[in-house]
This record gives sequence, structure tokens and C-alpha cells, in this order.
Amino acid sequence: MDMKIGDFLLRRLHELGINHLFGVPGDYNLAFLEQVEAHDQLQFIGNCNELNAAYAADGYARVRGCGCLLTTYGVGDLSALSGVAGAYAEHVPVVLISGTPPLQAMLDRALLHHTLMDGNYDNVMIAMAQFTVAQARITVENAAAEIDRVLLTCFRERRPVYLQLPSDLACLLIEVPETALALHASRSDPHQLSELLQRLQRRLAQAAHPVVLVDIDVARFGLTQQVQDLVEALRLPFASMLPAKAVLDENHWLFLGTYVGAGSAPAVRAAVEHSDCIISLGACFSDVSTGLFSQQLQPGALIQLHPYRAQLDGLHFNAVTLGQVLDGLACTPVERTGIVAPPHPLSLHPQWLAQANRPLSQARFWTRMGSFIRAGDVVIAENGTSSAGLGGLRMPPAVTYISQPLWGAIGYTLPALLGTQLAQPSRRHLLFIGDGSLQMTVQELSSLMRLNLKPVIFLINNDGYTIERLILGENAGYNDINPWRYAQLPGVLDTRQRSRCHTVHTEAQLDEVLSQQHAQDELLFIEVVMERMDAPESLRRFAKLFTDFDYGVRPPCAETAVN
Amino acid sequence: MDMKIGDFLLRRLHELGINHLFGVPGDYNLAFLEQVEAHDQLQFIGNCNELNAAYAADGYARVRGCGCLLTTYGVGDLSALSGVAGAYAEHVPVVLISGTPPLQAMLDRALLHHTLMDGNYDNVMIAMAQFTVAQARITVENAAAEIDRVLLTCFRERRPVYLQLPSDLACLLIEVPETALALHASRSDPHQLSELLQRLQRRLAQAAHPVVLVDIDVARFGLTQQVQDLVEALRLPFASMLPAKAVLDENHWLFLGTYVGAGSAPAVRAAVEHSDCIISLGACFSDVSTGLFSQQLQPGALIQLHPYRAQLDGLHFNAVTLGQVLDGLACTPVERTGIVAPPHPLSLHPQWLAQANRPLSQARFWTRMGSFIRAGDVVIAENGTSSAGLGGLRMPPAVTYISQPLWGAIGYTLPALLGTQLAQPSRRHLLFIGDGSLQMTVQELSSLMRLNLKPVIFLINNDGYTIERLILGENAGYNDINPWRYAQLPGVLDTRQRSRCHTVHTEAQLDEVLSQQHAQDELLFIEVVMERMDAPESLRRFAKLFTDFDYGVRPPCAETAVN
Repeated sequence: MDMKIGDFLLRRLHELGINHLFGVPGDYNLAFLEQVEAHDQLQFIGNCNELNAAYAADGYARVRGCGCLLTTYGVGDLSALSGVAGAYAEHVPVVLISGTPPLQAMLDRALLHHTLMDGNYDNVMIAMAQFTVAQARITVENAAAEIDRVLLTCFRERRPVYLQLPSDLACLLIEVPETALALHASRSDPHQLSELLQRLQRRLAQAAHPVVLVDIDVARFGLTQQVQDLVEALRLPFASMLPAKAVLDENHWLFLGTYVGAGSAPAVRAAVEHSDCIISLGACFSDVSTGLFSQQLQPGALIQLHPYRAQLDGLHFNAVTLGQVLDGLACTPVERTGIVAPPHPLSLHPQWLAQANRPLSQARFWTRMGSFIRAGDVVIAENGTSSAGLGGLRMPPAVTYISQPLWGAIGYTLPALLGTQLAQPSRRHLLFIGDGSLQMTVQELSSLMRLNLKPVIFLINNDGYTIERLILGENAGYNDINPWRYAQLPGVLDTRQRSRCHTVHTEAQLDEVLSQQHAQDELLFIEVVMERMDAPESLRRFAKLFTDFDYGVRPPCAETAVN
Repeated sequence: MDMKIGDFLLRRLHELGINHLFGVPGDYNLAFLEQVEAHDQLQFIGNCNELNAAYAADGYARVRGCGCLLTTYGVGDLSALSGVAGAYAEHVPVVLISGTPPLQAMLDRALLHHTLMDGNYDNVMIAMAQFTVAQARITVENAAAEIDRVLLTCFRERRPVYLQLPSDLACLLIEVPETALALHASRSDPHQLSELLQRLQRRLAQAAHPVVLVDIDVARFGLTQQVQDLVEALRLPFASMLPAKAVLDENHWLFLGTYVGAGSAPAVRAAVEHSDCIISLGACFSDVSTGLFSQQLQPGALIQLHPYRAQLDGLHFNAVTLGQVLDGLACTPVERTGIVAPPHPLSLHPQWLAQANRPLSQARFWTRMGSFIRAGDVVIAENGTSSAGLGGLRMPPAVTYISQPLWGAIGYTLPALLGTQLAQPSRRHLLFIGDGSLQMTVQELSSLMRLNLKPVIFLINNDGYTIERLILGENAGYNDINPWRYAQLPGVLDTRQRSRCHTVHTEAQLDEVLSQQHAQDELLFIEVVMERMDAPESLRRFAKLFTDFDYGVRPPCAETAVN
């Protein structure tokens, strides 16, 4: 069948589950935008800038399965790049489509704006290729094949990809396949699968204290239910790595808690580090996931299962897919008895009684949030006091918890919230973000109101970069930011009254605001003022570790510097 | 002598004329920031995000000669990259210093946050290398040599460079040179210089209508006065390319106007295109500088003089420096008579009489600005209606005019203003920016007030991306933005009263606000409301050219799309 290149690309995006494209219009992508506007199932969401668009597409993909953003060549691509890299680091499938100059102009090395004025059209592609798993410059002759190759790679790897769509090609007709994209995992080699399963079963049968270690790929590859079935069938206690918080129900009787090496609660640490059989589901032992490499696993205990490969007993299995391994394991349960419900380290929202005029502390605020967050919420935690505070709370069932601990770009969450809201508008979305982070990407508040979305935003105003102050320069000017009138922002970044804003200093004020939050009839923006150096205890410990790791054996940096 | 690596780097930056470092603190750059804080002649200016920091450093460099920004590895570098690329495209010397993880951790390929979690520490360097002219990862053993190599390249090429400073190295002592950086242009090869000068003089002597074509390198390489001396000594009429607006005095009797190919005023076009001897000083014949390659120069007329090379009569001179060529030419004047003052195409601020309740039009607004801008101002023009409107005005003497026509990233100018203000605080700085552009980088308004700077900001509120509407999608939703209460922004992005804000719709309102602007005692923010599709005529013509160039021979993009 024949379709215009742009329309074919949109059809494929829709097959990937995408209904919204984020981005910024630019002179090289307008014809394609005409096609988006004309499409009855896809909508363009204009962002205030491209980095925000990338974060929004990332948030959307985490909830919806795949995201897309549209930029203009050069200026737009590079502005979005850090957000794309974040999607790579955190295994988020995002399609970046760049509207480029007309194809012939690029082939002729024309000196066009949005380039370095040297005729080089490779530099942007080279930069993007460092942070995406597939790339293509679309031509008429390669369009059908390359679009499918690149999009299938995005799906298969759950990582970002990059497509350059020359401005003059979007509206041209090509021949395209009638069949839909084949969106399923590859199959395992039967011999490797059977061998792996036998070994796994043997290891499990011999194990005294087996545990499952869940990381984020379980969610990304849509295996949450299968993992839950498996741990129940085999009665396996499980712990989550930091990026996988709440992927599996934190209220499950087999849930141990979050494992972060020496930073874990003692019972979690003991369960994992004394285990003689750790079934890792995609575990990445990064600095932040291990309390700076403080994990001390039993020699030989670790069995690594990844989406397309596995490793145990010193053997590599490069032809097994995780879904089939999980199915196989669950179908042949090993006899296990005597499993006791592990003690639960995450606080179970203790009783809260506001102490009227008591200024809010971090400890008390997060305690209060423990009873505010409810089943089914989407909870978005900015890095810093927010992720540390929420990390210590047990999430109710069916909560989707979103943070960016690995790439760790502050400012990520506000635009990401725009993405999650559009991906699943019927759920309640809660954002927790600090003042320094909000200032990074604040303009996207406007897009939330423009689209009449109704999240609850908690802005933790603690007067600057508290996480940095905990690392170095507690009183240094470089960790200060200019204070804003935060609660007035929603009223200025929109001309209609589509928000309700409060500033709270005390427990009673917080309670009063939260008690009014019955129906989500408006965006609710709550500025929570807390002390500059107040922070969850876990963040203090984490920061101290990083001071030593980052700055090593050293003399004082500067004679007059104080910390 | 011995110095700590960080202190040595700061010493070199100061030798380059830098007194302010822009950037964002992060966990890998805090020890270096301690050194900045302790330095008595350097100040760290914290920006709200890294892209804004890059723009600020670029603006600073355009006025001061060199700029610097400080980021944290990965997240910060990539967020700043589009701004760095802009500096490359527009020949602006900016030093990007990235605080990286500790050196050994990188050599060990440790899985650290701010990376892709695959042990790859080359990807960021590869990406940055596409958009900088020199790079280095500092080690203790290479620090003294590499810092000097990279900074001298920045100076020599007037383009951005990239230094990775591992977090654990800043405070370690090394042996460094006592001498200052040798900041002077290289010398020409005497034979090539003499041969080139002879040929130039011969060409000039034979020429009936010689002209000089000035581009931005004249300013970047500090040759403005030499060029002015030359054109006066030889009585050569001169035209400016778009990026070089107001580099030479636009009121000079030999000034022809701005040459933009077919987009030039007829007299300018005729003077350049009928010339038999065009002495180009760094001219770059880009799309935006030539009205999309519409220049029609006489065959053989063009003589290209670049900072370090020249081309004429089919010969290449790769060992001549522009400063020496200019000196040589000016010292041996050719006899020329009969030069008449060329007609002047730029409007000479015609008499303005406000028509009280008349809504402001683009034409009338720019006319009014013609008399508001005064000698010595720094005028910063965002791409779009602002640069088009200001492009048609003759700048008073000693105005520094700043825009980013080649890289063309909207949002550039607001953070750039922060840089220009800090670079030369005693001058009056005027910013002209559209609403869509302001939304991109709005948070940097806060930094201006935090530092108590007092520019005049004209926010052209014409309800969306007018320049894009003129290209495609006049009424398309993708060219809309969410309207804001712009005049309330300064009062919200700061908690002290350090600004005066107005919204003007009519000529009388504008006049009233401007008549109050006597002393620069506060930041003055003027929201100028104009019609959505009103635009300077030159922008309309420009946009139409781009519609045809970008989208070529094509069927309608979408059946239901309307334009």
C-alpha cells in the first residue's frame, strides 16, 4: 500500500501505543506537524522547550510503554539530548524525530542555520548516536525499512532511538507494508532455555535462603505480573533495587524492602547478603543502587537474569528471554516450606496527628504523605529530599512510582509529570519536587494548566540545593538560589484560573490544605516551606558517602573556604 | 611554581579576561567551586539551568572576549550542549569546564549516576568534540600542558573548548608555568604576506567599484578599529553581513548598509553585486546571510580574507593573518578619488509622534525604538520579529548589537543578556524578545534580579510563534503557546522589589513608560502587546523563502490541514 512518509511514521508510532507527541515546532518540522494535526488519534503537545519535551516523553513512556518527541535539527536535538540520555540510562523507550533541512541541502553540505556553518551534517548524528540505540536519516528509498528497523529496536531494547526526517520528505508517497509492527519478544533457543531452567531449579532446590532482586527492566519489559506470579508460586522473598521501587507491591507478604547495599534496612541487607541464591531480575549494581558499591553478596550466590540473556554458575546464556525463563520457572515449582513473612522495613504510615503550629519538618512531612498517598496514585519523586523521603515510605498497592535515580538530572520530574498525566489522565498524579529542581524546568507548569490537567504538586521549598549542601559547601553561595514566590507561579504561567495554590509552614496548615483535596477539580500547588538543612536521614548518609568518594584524599580546597 | 590544578585553571581563565563563571553546582564540581569562591577576582554566577548558563557565558564572551561555564558531567554537559554549539557556529570563545567523577572511577568504568550505566566514559567526550575545537580530560600529569593547549586553542580559534576536571583533582598541587598565556595572533609568513598585499593593491588599483564586506570575525578577532582605519584610509565603501550588524559604525559616511543578497536594500545590493572587487572580511555566505543563497557576485570579484588565511585570483594563502593584512593594506594606500557617500538604506529614526490610542503595530514600534536606542547601548535581538525589526534600524554609534542568526536557537537572548550585563555593567542593555522565545528560558529573569541588574526588557507578546506561522501553519494549534501574565513574572521570580513592569497596548502607553525611564534604578520589563500576524516586512519575505526551500515540490501535507 502507499502512504506518505510522515503518515506512515505516525501509523507506526500509534502501533507502539503512542497517542501524544511532545516537542517544539521549528522551521524544519512544520509539514510533519501538519500531518500530526490531521491524524485523528495522535495529538501534538507543544512544550516550552526541548529538554522539557524530552522529559515529558520519558514520563509518558514510563507509564504508556513508549514515548515520542519532535524537534528541529541541531538546536532542538541538542537541547533535548540530556533528556534522551536519561531515557537511555533508565531503559525508557523514546523515539526522537528530528525535522532536518531538506535532504539535498544536507547532501550538498549547504551552509544553513542550525548548523555549525561548515557543511558538516554528521556531527549531530554522531552526538545522538552516543545516547540512542538506533539511528537513521530517512530518505525516500530507505524510509519504509529504516523506520521499522529503528522503531523495532526502540521496542526491543526499551531505549531511545533517533530519526532524522528531512523537511521535504514528509509529504511524499512511498510503498509501505500493510502489516503492523511485530511487537513481541524474541524466543529463546530451546536448548539454552531448558539448560538454564534445569540449573535454576537445581540452585533453588539447594538454596537455604533464596531471594529475588527486582530491578527496573521488570517494569519496562512488562513482566511485573509474571514476576509476581513467580514469587508467589515459589514463595520467594523479594527485594527491590532503588529504580524499581513499587514495581512489585510493597505490601506483599514476601516483600523484603529496598536493597541498597549498606544503605539498606538491616533485615533487607541480611536477607540479600546472606542469601545463597539471589535471582537478580535485571539488577544493575550502580553507585546509587548499592550505597556506593557497598554490596557484599555471598560468592557464587548471584544469578543474573536479563531481558535477553542470563548468567549463572559461570555460564553465559545469550539466547534466553526473561519472559520465557519466568514462565518456565513458575510452571515447575520447587517444593519450599517454612517461609516466614519477612519483617517489613518500610514504614506503614504511622498514625498522624498534626501538632497545630509546629513548623513542618522533613520527618513529619513524609510521615503525613504516607497516609496521603493512596492506592493507584502515580507518585513522581525528584532526586534529593523528595526521593529520599518517599523512598522510606511503603507505597500502597498499584502505585506507579517514578524517579530518575541513575541519570539523576534535577528538574526532570516536572515535565515528566506532564507526560504521565497525559498517558493516564484518570489516575491521580502527585509530584514532589524541590525548589532548585523546579527552577530548572519551571515553564512546563504552564503546559499542565494549558491542557487543564490536575495533578497535586508539592514544592519543597528549602532554600537552595540541600542535597549539594550535604555533600560540600553547606553555607557556600554557590548552593544558594534566588527565592521565588512559588505559590504565585501557577497564576502567572497561565491567564485562566486553573489552579489552587497554597503555602504551608506548619502541620496544621498542611492538614487543612490536604483535607480540602476531595475532587481533582483543579491543579493543586502546595509550597511546603521547610528548614534549609533538614533532610531525611538516608539522604544525609548518602551525601556523606559521596563527599568521600568524589573528592578523595585531598588537602583543603581553598584556604578561606569553610564547610 | 606550584599551584593546585583548580587554582591554575582559574588563573588562566582570569588571564583570558574572565571574571565570572556561569553554571550550576553539582556533586562532581563542588571542590572546584570552593576554589572559585576563594578566588578574589573570579565570581561564580549560579544559573537556573545549564542551557541558560551556556547562553550567559556566550553573551559574556561576545562583550568581554571570552566566557566560561561550569557544569557537572553528563547531565550538565549535555544540557549545555546546544548553547556550546551555538558558540561554535557564531565564533564565540567559551570554555566549558565539566566536573567529572573521580579519575580512577572513570578509568575503572564504574557504574556511576550521570552515566548510561554501561561503563562508557567516552560518549560525552565524543558528543562534545563535535561542537568544540579542543578537548581534554585533565589528569595530574597532563594538567599544566593540556589546560594551556585547550585554552590557547579557544583564544586562537574564537570557538568553544571542553575540559573535563575530575572531582578529586582540583585540589592537588602540580608544577605550572610562571609566565602568562601568550595571547596574540600568530604572524604571517613574510613571503605570503607580501605577495598577498601586492595582489590586493593591484586589484584595488584596477577596481572601478571596490567594496568591503564585513562579517563577524572582525569583531571576534578585535579588528574593528583596524578595519575602520582601513576603509577610511582607502575610502572604501563597506557593507555588513547580517551577523556583523553594527560592528562598524552604521553612521559612517562610507557605510552602505546590510548585505543579505536579494534581501538587501536595492542600493546595497547593487553596490556589492556590481562591484568588481569585493574584499570580504571573514564573510560566511550562509542561508540567512544571503537571503537563501541569492547573492549574485561578479565572477572573480570576491577576495576572501579570513583570520588566518586568504584567497584571491584562484590562489590560497594559508599563512597570512588578517590583522597584518589590514595593517599592510592601510599603510600603502591606493589613490582613489571620486568616492561619493552612498545612499543610506537604514532608517534614521524618523520623527515620532505618538498617536494616543492607536494600538501598537510592529512598524510603529520599531520606529519608536529607533529614537529610544542611544549611543553606547548593548542591544540584544532575539530571532524573529525582534531581529527583523531592529535589523531595519540604523544603530547609533558605539552600540554593541547581539543576536544569534546562524545557530538560531530561540530563547538564547534572555540568558545572554545576563552575560552581557555582567560583562559590562556600566552600559545600558536593551533586550527585545518574543513570547515564545521568553518561555524557553524564562527562569533566567530571576538571576538578573538576584544580581540586581537593571536592563530594559521589551517582551513582544504576539501570541505564539509568529515566525513559524509565517512559514507554515498560520492558524495551526502547534504554533500556539499558552498565554502568560508576562508583566507579573519579575514579581514572582524574585521576592524583593527589584523591577518595574508595564503592559502596553497603545502608542501613548509606550511613550509614557519610556518617558519615565530616566535613571536605570531598577530592571524595567515592558510587555508590548501586538497583533499575532503583524511582522516586519523583511521577516515576511524571509519566511516565504524558507517555506519554499524547506518543503520543496510537494503535494498537500494533509488533506484536512489548512494554511
